[in-house]
This record gives sequence, structure tokens and C-alpha cells, in this order.
Amino acid sequence: PGKFKNNVVEFTNKVKELGKDDPRKIIHSIKFGLTLSLVSLLHYFKPRDSSIWAVLTVVVVFEFSVGATLGKGLNRIMATFLAGALGVGAHHLATLVGGKGQLILLQLFVFLLAAASSFSRFLPGIKARYDYGVLTFILTFSLVSVSGFRADEMLELAHHRLLAIIIGSLSCVIISIFVFPVWAGQELHKLIALNIEKLADFLQGFGGEYFGNEEEGENDDLVSRANKSLLYKSVLNSKTTEESLANFARWEPPHGRFKFRHPWKQYLKIGTLTRQCAYEIEALSSCINSEIQAPLEFKKMIKDACIGMSMESSKVLQELSSSMKTMTHPADAVVEHMTNSKTASDNLKTVMKRASMLEIKTNILEMIPAATVASLLVEILARIEKIAGS
Amino acid sequence: PGKFKNNVVEFTNKVKELGKDDPRKIIHSIKFGLTLSLVSLLHYFKPRDSSIWAVLTVVVVFEFSVGATLGKGLNRIMATFLAGALGVGAHHLATLVGGKGQLILLQLFVFLLAAASSFSRFLPGIKARYDYGVLTFILTFSLVSVSGFRADEMLELAHHRLLAIIIGSLSCVIISIFVFPVWAGQELHKLIALNIEKLADFLQGFGGEYFGNEEEGENDDLVSRANKSLLYKSVLNSKTTEESLANFARWEPPHGRFKFRHPWKQYLKIGTLTRQCAYEIEALSSCINSEIQAPLEFKKMIKDACIGMSMESSKVLQELSSSMKTMTHPADAVVEHMTNSKTASDNLKTVMKRASMLEIKTNILEMIPAATVASLLVEILARIEKIAGS
Repeated sequence: PGKFKNNVVEFTNKVKELGKDDPRKIIHSIKFGLTLSLVSLLHYFKPRDSSIWAVLTVVVVFEFSVGATLGKGLNRIMATFLAGALGVGAHHLATLVGGKGQLILLQLFVFLLAAASSFSRFLPGIKARYDYGVLTFILTFSLVSVSGFRADEMLELAHHRLLAIIIGSLSCVIISIFVFPVWAGQELHKLIALNIEKLADFLQGFGGEYFGNEEEGENDDLVSRANKSLLYKSVLNSKTTEESLANFARWEPPHGRFKFRHPWKQYLKIGTLTRQCAYEIEALSSCINSEIQAPLEFKKMIKDACIGMSMESSKVLQELSSSMKTMTHPADAVVEHMTNSKTASDNLKTVMKRASMLEIKTNILEMIPAATVASLLVEILARIEKIAGS
Repeated sequence: PGKFKNNVVEFTNKVKELGKDDPRKIIHSIKFGLTLSLVSLLHYFKPRDSSIWAVLTVVVVFEFSVGATLGKGLNRIMATFLAGALGVGAHHLATLVGGKGQLILLQLFVFLLAAASSFSRFLPGIKARYDYGVLTFILTFSLVSVSGFRADEMLELAHHRLLAIIIGSLSCVIISIFVFPVWAGQELHKLIALNIEKLADFLQGFGGEYFGNEEEGENDDLVSRANKSLLYKSVLNSKTTEESLANFARWEPPHGRFKFRHPWKQYLKIGTLTRQCAYEIEALSSCINSEIQAPLEFKKMIKDACIGMSMESSKVLQELSSSMKTMTHPADAVVEHMTNSKTASDNLKTVMKRASMLEIKTNILEMIPAATVASLLVEILARIEKIAGS
């Protein structure tokens, strides 16, 4: 029993953490509960066989972001309509043949359409946007075509069911748009800006960490800064999240500062560039903890240039991130810091040439990656800058 | 019309490509079509309201891999059972209260359970394994508790529906296990081994590419090799795939060479290490196309050592990958190549020391990353070797 109690306490803590982390998740749960009990109330007052389809629709369609909900709802409505029409047609055709042929023909239709639709789900383009629609399509088609009702009954049934599904989807969409909406587009925007900022944080801390030259501050401060500079790791694996957000965003109506036909694909491009940056940073960060370290003498020589470079490129990234957040064009500050970081990288080259002149006994194995990566960073930054963005 | 025709041709080509790429996808579609028409045949002979639930179950539960199908099927059965029982209980309780209280109490139940379940879907542990179960749970509970049937009717209904869902799930599971099964575990195994091999391919090609010393072969051969060495890029983003495969694999019964309680988590660990390797390789590969190149003189000096290193570490990876494929313990060859690559890296260090002695006018900015990364690679390899692995 003690173990059980522990488990319960642990679970409660996890839930609390999750709630604190993102209160919108709690709000989402409440929204969902409300929608569901609203729609089921409808069922209570007008108990009809088809109104359970409204309940079913709410459970399946309601998603965290507006885009996802809208996408699923539209998919469901369109697919039900299309499959219903096709199903009635197939049924009619089969009745014309009659007898044993009817059964065989219907089974053949179901088999063919099911196989074709399930194959189409492997096509990336369809998978991304219409996966749920295809699923509903197969479901409705097989239900309608095998139902064995007479044609007029079937039309009425189809009519009711479509209505139920529209009611279910509409309630979901309305609640998700008007009650504390979570816009996938906005999420994507924030995520990309945040990712750029995370890289900036790392670069800001990097100089001090690598050259072991933290100003003696409070310990807490140091630890929190070290944690902050490790945040970039999440950027490495953000591809899937970005892509699904961009997919959802394309379903969303214009909202806030995002106009119609907002260039969501641009975000994916910036996201990819940011991730390439993050790969370089990952390599850079492994230099900090590497066993092989450069001789102090050499480190001292290049210290200023390197710190300058990483600081300045960090500032470029910060400026880019904040100009994304405010949705303004990158300020002149970006250009300034770019120039500064290029100067710093030129400085570094000079210093290194001098170093090899001075014939230091050197095992430079470890220092130069820093420089390389930083200069690569500058290259990538230049590419980011090119992208007009929002 | 010309444009439409083009689109059709393009689409057909895409489909053909997809089929050639992985014929199992076509087989899957046929399996799905068969299962669905089988189950709907059942409905045709025993038309009952509940048997549409069998059809519905097939559409929703049938997935590409055995693990995913089994997981969804079990989730669906368990959740339906649990929610059905709870729903009948809640309904009974509400009837005891009676009058207006009944409605309010039922709505309250639906609201609370819906909110709680939808919140639980945010917990990563539940999301990964029981997401579908939670969804079915909410659905069934709200359908049952609001249905407004009498208790004895409801029990019969619940009984029929559960039976239908079990029949649906079972047909899916049986077909997916016994007709050309696709095991998620095996897929994971192959994926991890393949990813290691991709890194090996890159390293094998790297030496020649960086030092511009391809043996003059046929052009086709060169191109195909260059493409081959770019395959590693897919490793960078394989995390999501690996995790979902591992999740599915945990549902699967023992099969082939995979025994009960196969250590699927090990695969994720190896996968993560492989990916870290791939990040380093990404940095390495950017050196090939970088604008800044080392002076030829210097390149020549370190050429042999570097090629040696990348070749030997490539061989280590190849050995590891093939020993994974055959599920044997890594052969002595691995140890041998490890030693060789370490020797090569020591050689490189000596060469570099000598280089700085010789006072070459050097802008080594570009060469040394190669060395660093290669030595990092050796470190990571050492870690991989430690993992016992299947």
C-alpha cells in the first residue's frame, strides 16, 4: 500500500507540473468536457440513432489547436458526404444486378475502395493533410454500401447522419475558435523564434564556458545559465513538431497578425536552417567537454577573437528572434552585429596565422573547431538573413 | 485537359514508385481490403445494429505493423469494457437519484471524465501507449451513460457491442500476424542497423571526397557513391520513427529471433548514440563544401592519417551493423579496426605536431575539424561498443 501511495503522489505531482507548465492544457480539457456534454445533452433531448454520431464526432475531432480541429472537422464532413454519395450509388448499381451478383459486386466495391484508400494513406501529401478524411471515407462507404437498407430509407439515414456530423464538427470548431483559442500558426511562429533564441543563449554562454572565464557570480546564477545554454538540444529534434504545426496552420482562418495565405512554408525553411545551425552547435559543444584540450597558451591567444565571434553571432540571432516576435523587419542592429562578427572572425584568422609563425608547440586539435563552427555559423546566419521572413 | 492528364500521369508514377519502393505497402492495402470485406460480409449475413461496430473497429484498428494493430485492438477492447461498466454504473446511480437530478448528474459525470481523460492524453507515458484507449474510453462512456436505455436493455447492448469490437479487433490481429506480417520490432532492428551502415558509407567516401582523390572510375559509379554518402542525412531526423516503432514493438508477441522481453529500449539508446554521431558527421560534411580550404601542402601531410582514420572507423561501424543484422556478438574484427583507427588518430597527432614544427605558413582553419570529428567518432564508437546489444 505504501508503494501505491507513492505512485499516486508521484502521479499527482506529474499532473501538477504539466498544468503549471502549460495551463492551456487544462483549459483544453475543460473545453473538451464542455463540448462533449453539450452535444450529449442534445442527444438526451432528441434521442435518435443518428445523434450518437454527433457525440462520436466530437470525441474524435476535438484537438488542441484550432487548425487541427478545423482540419479534422472539414475532412470528416467532406469524406462523409463523398463516401455517402458513392455508397448510395454503389448500392443502387448492385441492386440493379440483383441476386447473388449483388453481394459479390458490393464486396468487390468495398475491397477495391478500401485497398485503394489505405494505399493512398502512404502518399506523404495525402498523409499530411487528408489522412483522417480517407479513414472516414472508407468507414462511411463500407457502412453505407453494406447496410442493406432500401434506397429511400438510406437517403434519409445518410441525411440525418451527415447533419449529426456537421453539428458535432461545428460545435468543436466554434468552441475551439471562440473559447481561449490555441492557434497552430501562432505556436509555430513562437516555436521558431524560441528556437533561434535558444541557439543565441548557447552562443552567449559558450565563450565563458570554453575559456573557463566565468565572472565569479552567485552559484545559482551559474547553474541556471548552464541549463539555459543546454536548451538548444531540443532544437535538434523539432522537425516533426514544426511540420505538423505548419500543416495545421494551413487550415486556419486569418487570425491576429497572421493574414490570409501567411507564408507558413517560410517557417519550415527557417526552421531547417536553424536546425542545421544546431547541428554545428552540437559539435561545438562537444569540444567543451572533450578530453583533449588545447594548451592554455594557445587558448589565451585566440580567446578574445573567439568570444567576440560567439557573442556577436549570438546578438545577431537574438535580434532576429526578437524581430520575428514583434513581426518587424530585422533592425539595422542585425547588420551591425553581422559586420562585427565577421570582423571578429577575420581577427581570429590573423591571430592564428601569427600563432603558427610563433612556432608554439601546439596540439591545436581542439581549438580550431570552435573557430570553424563560429565561421560556419556566420555563413548560416547570412542565409537566414536573406530570407525575408514574415 | 492537358494539365489534368499530366497530373494523372505524375500521380500514377508516384504510386508506382511507392509500390516499388516498398511492396509491403501494396500487400498491406490488400490485407486491409480483405479484412474489411470479410467483416462486412458478416454484417451482411447477420444484420444487427451492433455489427457495424465490427466494421468500424476494423477501419480504425488495422495498422501497418503487427504491434500497432495489436496495441490498438487491445486498447479498444479494454477501454470499451471499462467504459461500458463505468457507464452502466453511472447510469444506475443517476437513475437512483431520479428526476432532474438524473440529467445533471449524468452530464456532470460526462464532463468530469471527458476532461480528466483528455488531460491524461497530455501525459507522455499515456500518450505513447494508451492514447487510443483513452479516446475509446471517453467515446464509449459518453455513449453509454447518455443513451437513456433501461438497465437490462443496456446490458444486452453493451454485450453485443463488446462482442462486435472483439470480433473486429481479432480479425485485424489475426490477418496482420498470419498474412505477410510486418513486425515493428524487426523494422526497428533493421532501421538501427541501416542507420549505422549509412554513417559507415559516409565515412568510407569522406576521405576520397575531401582530399579530392577519387580513383578515376566510371562517372555513374562516382555519382552513385556520392549519393550513397549523403544518405546519412536521414539519420538526423529518425528519432520520432524509432520511438514509435519501439512503442509498437512492446505490444508484439515473441517472433522470429526476437524473444519475449526483447530489450527494445537498448535500440533507442543505440539510436541516440548513432544520431549524435550523425550530428558530428553533419559538421564534418560541411567542411567538404566550405569556402575556406586548407593549403594543399598541409592537406597532403595529413591525408594518409585522416583517410586511415575515417576508413577504419567506417569499418568498425560496418562490422557493428552487420553483427547487429546477424544478431551475433561483434566479432574480433571490430576490436581490430578500433585499434587501427586509434593508431591512425595517434599518427595524425604526430603529423600535426611535426607540421607546426616545420613552420608551414598555415591557415589550418579547415583541416583540423576533420581530425576532431574523427576522433570524436572514435569516442562515440567506444561508447557504442560498450553497449552489449542483442
